[in-house]
Parts: sequence; structure tokens; C-alpha cells
Amino acid sequence: MKNSHKIIAFIFSLLSNTIAPLQSSVAAELKVNSKPNFVIILADDLGYGDLGCFGHPTIRTPNLDRMAAEGQKWTSFYSAAPVCTPSRAGLMTGRLPIRTGMTSDRNHVLFPESKGGLPENEITIASALKTSGYSAACIGKWHLGNLPQYTANAHGFDYFFGMTCGNDEYLQEGRDYKTSLIDPKVEYFNVPLMRNTEILERPADQTTYTRKCTEEAINFIKQNKDKPFFLYLAHTAPHVPLFRSTKFENKSLRGIYGDVVEELDWSVGEILATLKKNGLDNNTLVVFTSDNGPWTGFQELGGSAGLLSGGKGNGGTFEGGMREPTIFRWPGKLKTGVVMDMATGMDLFPTISKLAGVPLPNDRIYDGYDISPVMFGTGKDPRDVVYYYRDAQLFAIRRGEFKVHFKILPENGHDSFTSKDLPLLFNLNIDPSEKQNIAAKHPEIIKEIIEIQKQHQATLVPVENQLEK
Amino acid sequence: MKNSHKIIAFIFSLLSNTIAPLQSSVAAELKVNSKPNFVIILADDLGYGDLGCFGHPTIRTPNLDRMAAEGQKWTSFYSAAPVCTPSRAGLMTGRLPIRTGMTSDRNHVLFPESKGGLPENEITIASALKTSGYSAACIGKWHLGNLPQYTANAHGFDYFFGMTCGNDEYLQEGRDYKTSLIDPKVEYFNVPLMRNTEILERPADQTTYTRKCTEEAINFIKQNKDKPFFLYLAHTAPHVPLFRSTKFENKSLRGIYGDVVEELDWSVGEILATLKKNGLDNNTLVVFTSDNGPWTGFQELGGSAGLLSGGKGNGGTFEGGMREPTIFRWPGKLKTGVVMDMATGMDLFPTISKLAGVPLPNDRIYDGYDISPVMFGTGKDPRDVVYYYRDAQLFAIRRGEFKVHFKILPENGHDSFTSKDLPLLFNLNIDPSEKQNIAAKHPEIIKEIIEIQKQHQATLVPVENQLEK
Repeated sequence: MKNSHKIIAFIFSLLSNTIAPLQSSVAAELKVNSKPNFVIILADDLGYGDLGCFGHPTIRTPNLDRMAAEGQKWTSFYSAAPVCTPSRAGLMTGRLPIRTGMTSDRNHVLFPESKGGLPENEITIASALKTSGYSAACIGKWHLGNLPQYTANAHGFDYFFGMTCGNDEYLQEGRDYKTSLIDPKVEYFNVPLMRNTEILERPADQTTYTRKCTEEAINFIKQNKDKPFFLYLAHTAPHVPLFRSTKFENKSLRGIYGDVVEELDWSVGEILATLKKNGLDNNTLVVFTSDNGPWTGFQELGGSAGLLSGGKGNGGTFEGGMREPTIFRWPGKLKTGVVMDMATGMDLFPTISKLAGVPLPNDRIYDGYDISPVMFGTGKDPRDVVYYYRDAQLFAIRRGEFKVHFKILPENGHDSFTSKDLPLLFNLNIDPSEKQNIAAKHPEIIKEIIEIQKQHQATLVPVENQLEK
Repeated sequence: MKNSHKIIAFIFSLLSNTIAPLQSSVAAELKVNSKPNFVIILADDLGYGDLGCFGHPTIRTPNLDRMAAEGQKWTSFYSAAPVCTPSRAGLMTGRLPIRTGMTSDRNHVLFPESKGGLPENEITIASALKTSGYSAACIGKWHLGNLPQYTANAHGFDYFFGMTCGNDEYLQEGRDYKTSLIDPKVEYFNVPLMRNTEILERPADQTTYTRKCTEEAINFIKQNKDKPFFLYLAHTAPHVPLFRSTKFENKSLRGIYGDVVEELDWSVGEILATLKKNGLDNNTLVVFTSDNGPWTGFQELGGSAGLLSGGKGNGGTFEGGMREPTIFRWPGKLKTGVVMDMATGMDLFPTISKLAGVPLPNDRIYDGYDISPVMFGTGKDPRDVVYYYRDAQLFAIRRGEFKVHFKILPENGHDSFTSKDLPLLFNLNIDPSEKQNIAAKHPEIIKEIIEIQKQHQATLVPVENQLEK
């Protein structure tokens, strides 16, 4: 497969100087019949309410708004977890982090000094696609392990550019965490800029990180335009500490947080324009989503969950912690409009596998579903249940329109409820803000969902904890 | 002027049977050079967060979403007041309700038995346009007076169809208000359906009210397609008691409230389609907005202010009470996109006057501005200040990005503040949810806004209170 693509690429390179306009139209047509490309753009701590098309009044996101208008705006799309490392583990593997050891009540996420990572026997979207001739790049933040056996390169990506951990985790020794995040300077953070295993810059200039990652992503697309590819562009924006390039300084009415989101929006625009310019538009599925909800504890430096309650952290199992502003784009293929069906980041693995013609491994449990019937408007949503884990503990379950909270933390970011009120029951279609507890009215629904909880927990097998290593 | 339009209409009617296709293109061209038409569609108690394009996850509003995508989505557009009667008085006159006697701390709004109304010497959008040859219709809910001298017909409208007060105010004697609103039946409310002064049906079937008003609006447009017109379509939806036609029953994931908003969206779609079909598209400004924020006290029967705090009622001077989901449409004329400039319902009078070439009367104070420079992208927003009145009392002022609350009620719907915290200062661009009180950091801004308060209050002249008559 790889060879045949190389031959096609070679033929095109011969033709390119003489009949360029013809070439691009031929190329575009050929692409339609070949395997689709996949681009996942992941934001970091972006809130459900932070994009124009999701209702933010002062953050300008014209590129994402257009992407939504031309594609699908998913209003009930969840991350696998309300914090970074487990959320990304779920997205990459299609499996709940509790199954891969990538979640911990003690540590929450991986750190630069962590010795654990996504186990070598886990299969990522990249490693699955590799079996089918795809090139794959991970650009931005990985956060699934630092040691050689856990890196993006070890997990199916031909190319890695970025940092292995979160931008806040590289704080220089002796500095105070909170004040450094609130009033950040580049030199406070010993963030690396890596290309595969090589460190290009350290401390890297975080003000140009989004721009550099975007440029790398564009180069990767251009270099791979004649063969199928998977681009995973996992920006560190808009996670604190907030940095943006000069061009975006004081550009947003929303302050520095808005500047950072607007540069993220610019990045999405550049990626979409590159796909179009290279005739890849109609043969590429682009997914934009976020790893978890906004870090509201950082006040104006964190985002907004819009009408949802909670956010990243203690209120993470309220909707604001895990429901993400999600947009799909694939011109000519998707049934365009607003999609209200439930889906999660874990569904991307089975969906992409299906679209690429790669069989799903049958030696393990998958928590994701192939949601392509919903994307194409050809069938029903296969997902009826969402599990809300706070670290290694199952706090809540959604089944259809109903959600039961079995546990909440004392400081949960929701103004109305304490653990004395448990279990809480909400109808999320009617009450997405989780304000009206209807537990007393529907004991039978709670009973049914407790049954689902039991059945789910029976499928769990103890594994080595990677975050506590 | 009226005669010349009649002649043109007559010529077209002669031509219509022979060269219909030519006629419509000639008509379309002619329209571009004639006076523009104006359509204001006003929702009742619709929340800032209740449309798809303003971020609601489970209410489908494809027509309004498209209207926003093709036109302008205003994210900082205010009503003149957080309750019905004063809000409509402000919209109709371009003047704060405190200047027209249309606000009262005691009564809040007008009732069917009220003896007051919008004074005869007040000039409405309709009466101003009448001087320039416009036909005008008020369809839906008037709420500016019941007696002959206060009706829509008395205030410049050639045609009235609907009810004079709010749909909840016609409760049959002996019935309990709250339970009748929560579980409503048509027969609980002695609502009239009027055509001018004639009562067509009473109690009217509220399930068909939105549909009937839409049909009347369509007829009015068709009848006036050859002369300039002003259509004020003030739906009673989605104000409690909630009713919708059979076609929309159980259609929305959001329950009955969603059904009602989705029928409202359907209505907007029908109006836009009628304008298009009649070649009026490019010569008609359509404005969609709401009279005040959602009535959150009615829980799932009320709407959502999205990321904003407060709503109609006691928390009305928080953003959720007065910031409205607002969309403008005028193909080929507006600078399309998201507009973050401040504007209010009171700006429609001066703006429409300007566009219609009707001079603004100079014998009274106007609180509205001509915002056409913002609409066309030709100039700066003339508005820098918004006044938030709770009934007859000035509770808060916004100047640029900063808002000061001088007063709040004990039960204000905001979880974080009581009157002990006053004055409150928020930066609305950075903190639209009004969560971070920055009063202690910026005493100088509070001082400046207190100065604005004094200057404003010096312009007020005592007038007869119309709501207490």
C-alpha cells in the first residue's frame, strides 16, 4: 500500500511543473476513492461555552463557527474523563482509563518525573491505522508517558513535535505554582519543545507554541497529501499558564484567555485552509474537541462551561467537566447540522477504525462505539450510556436523558447540592444545567441505573496503576 | 407617496398574468431603490441561552441559526427593562420607560383591568413610519394598554391581531395562578384573539396562537409587498402558560418549553421564506429579539440565560434579565458575523427612523441611538452606556465593559452576592457571568459611573404613572 502511494506521489511530482491545475483536480478525485484522512484537533481545558457557536459573547471564533456551520456541531459529546491524562488515554485507545491503569485518585495525571505511561500492549488510533498504511503525527501535548516505551513515537506515531506533559507541570524549581500560573513568564516554565526524541528548545518560548505546532501540522499535511494520514494536533492552549503570540496580544475582548482561544481558532482555520488548498477537503474527517472542561478555579484565566454546571477538577462529574464543544467536518460526507446524540472521545477509535477499514481488535473490551451512522445520518446512535469517572471512582452514570450522581465531592463547584442530597437524578435533555433534582420522583430510574453500574463494574479487571508508578 | 405605490402595484397587477417571471425580477430591483421594510419579531421571556446559535444543547432552532449565520448575531443586545410592559414601551418609543410612565415598583406590568397605557403623546415606531407612507401591523401581544386611546391601532398600527395583555394575565376567576401555569389547559385562560377592536375568539385556543399569528403576518407581508411596511410580530411564546400546536407536541428534546421555542423558530422560518418568495429579501431588515430574560422561577417551564446570571424578575438587573438573543438579517446590506457592540431595543426607533428617512422628533429625550453604522460596518457604536432599571429604580449601569450594581434584591437569583457586597463592579467582557466582583480594585471606575448616574437622573422629569392608574 505504502509503495503504491509513493508511485502515485512520484507521478504527480513529475507532472507538477507542467500541468499543475489539472494535477490538483485529478488528485482531488483520486483522493475521494482512497482511504480517508483523519485530523483530531484537541484543545486543553477549553470550556463548553467558550466558542462563538456554543454561545460565548466575547470570544471570536469565526473559523470554528464556520466549521460548525459547514459540518456538525455536537452538543452532547463527552471526554473520557474530567482531567487531562485519563481523558487522552481514553481518546487514544477507545477504552475507559480505568481499564488501562491511566487514572489515579492520588495523582490525577502524569508528571514529567512519572515512570508510568500508556502500557505498551494498548493499541492507539495511530498504531491501528499504521497497519493500514497511514502516516501519523502527534503534535502538541502528549501526556501519556515520558519514558521511551510510552512516548507517542512508541505508540504508532511516525512523528512527534511538542511536549510530553502539561505546560503547567514544568514549573522551575522553587517557584510558587499558583502565582506563576496567574502571572506567568516564559522563563518560569522549563517546557521543552521536542521533535521526536530530540529537544529543540528548553525552556521553549510558549508564546509561539501554538503557532509552531500549527506550522508543523501544516507541513505534515503537505508532506502526506498523497498518502493516507492521521494528524493528532493536541494544542496546550488554553491551559494555564496562558501564552499567545504577539499577533494575538490584547486582541480579544475576553482578555488573555480570549486571546489564547482566538489563536487556537486561527490554528483551526489554517489547518482547514491547508486541507482545502491541497485538495484533501472532501477526503478528510476533521474533529475538534477538548480534553476536559474549563478550569474555573482560575477565574478569568479559566474558561466557561456555558449553561452547564461544574468544570475541570472537583466538579468534574457535573456536565461542565466532561461535555466538550465538539465539531466534526467532512464536506460532502456528513449530514450537516446540530447533532444532539451522545458520543464520547472514546468513540473516535472504533469510528476511525471502521472508516479506515481496520478491524477492531477482539482481545479487549472497547468502551467506544462506531458513531459513523450518526455522522452520515444513516442510522441510530449506538451509545446509550456515559460513565463519569472522577479519577478511579465512578461518580455518575448517564443513561439516555437521565443522569444519576452516586457521589459528589464536598467542594464540587455546584452551588445547590451536597453529598447529603445523593443520589441526584437529572433529566439532561430538559435540564442540562443539572439544577432540578428529580430523584424523589423517579426511584425506578435510579434503580435501573444502579443495575447498569453493577454490570459495568463487573467488567473491570484490576490493572497496574500507571500514574502512581 | 402612498399613491405612487398604488400605481406601481396596479401596473404590476396588469403585467402579472403575462410576464410573471420578469415581473418578480423587476419588482426585486425596484424594491432595492425604494424605502426598506422593517420586521421586528419579539419573543416573550426567551432566555439568552435558548437558541442553538446561542449555545443551547437540546433546543433545535435551525431557522434562527441560519438567520444568524447569514446575518448578524448580536451578543450584547439589551431590552429596555427586565419585564414585559416597560421593555415593550422602550422598544416602541426609543425612550426609557421611566420617561413615559410605563414602569412601576408596585405593579411591574399592565393588566387587562389597567386603566393606563402608553400616553397618546408618545411616538411609536409605527406612528413615525406612518408619516412616511408605511403600512404597519402589530401581531401578537401588545401589552401597552387596553383602553381605545392606548391600543396598537391608536399608536400608528393600521392592523392589530392578537391580545392586549400577557397570556398569563387572563386567568379565569377562582383559579390558582401558579398551578394553572404549571399544568395549563386552554380553558383556564380567558385569552382573547382580536382583530383590531373585534374579538374573534374568547377564550382563544392558545395551542394555535403562534401559528395563527404567523399566518396573519404572512398575509400582511403579501398584501403589502408593493409598498413599504413595518411588521411587529410580538409572539406570546415562550411565556408561561406554554402551549404549542399539535405539530410541535413532544417534538423537542427540551420538553414542552423546547416545543414552544421550536414552533417560534418555525414561525421565523416562515416569515423569512415569505420575504424571499415575494422578492423582499434584499429590502427588508428583520430583527429577532426577546422582551426580557427567562422566567427561571418556573424551572423547566422557563428558559435559560446560558452563561449569564439572573433572569426575569428579582435578578432582572443581572445580565440574564436584560441581555437578549438577538439576530439581524438584511441580505447584501449588513456586515455579516458576530456583533459584540452594545445596543438595546430602544435603538431600533432611531435606527429605523434613519433608514426610512424619517427625522427624529426633537421635542423629547431619546435613549436610543442610530446603530446603523454598526449594522453596515461603516462606523463606531454610538452607545457606551446601558441603564438597568428594576421597575422605576435604577439598579445598575454599564459603561463600556464595566458594570456597577448599586442595588440588588435579597432574592436575586445570583448565588454569590447579597446587598452587603454593594456596590458590585464587573468587567462584562472578561466576566459576562458576573462572578468576580472587582469593586475593591477599581474605586475610580465606580466613581465615574456614579457621576453618569447623577447626570442621567438629572434628565428625568416626573410623569404620570401609567401602570398604577
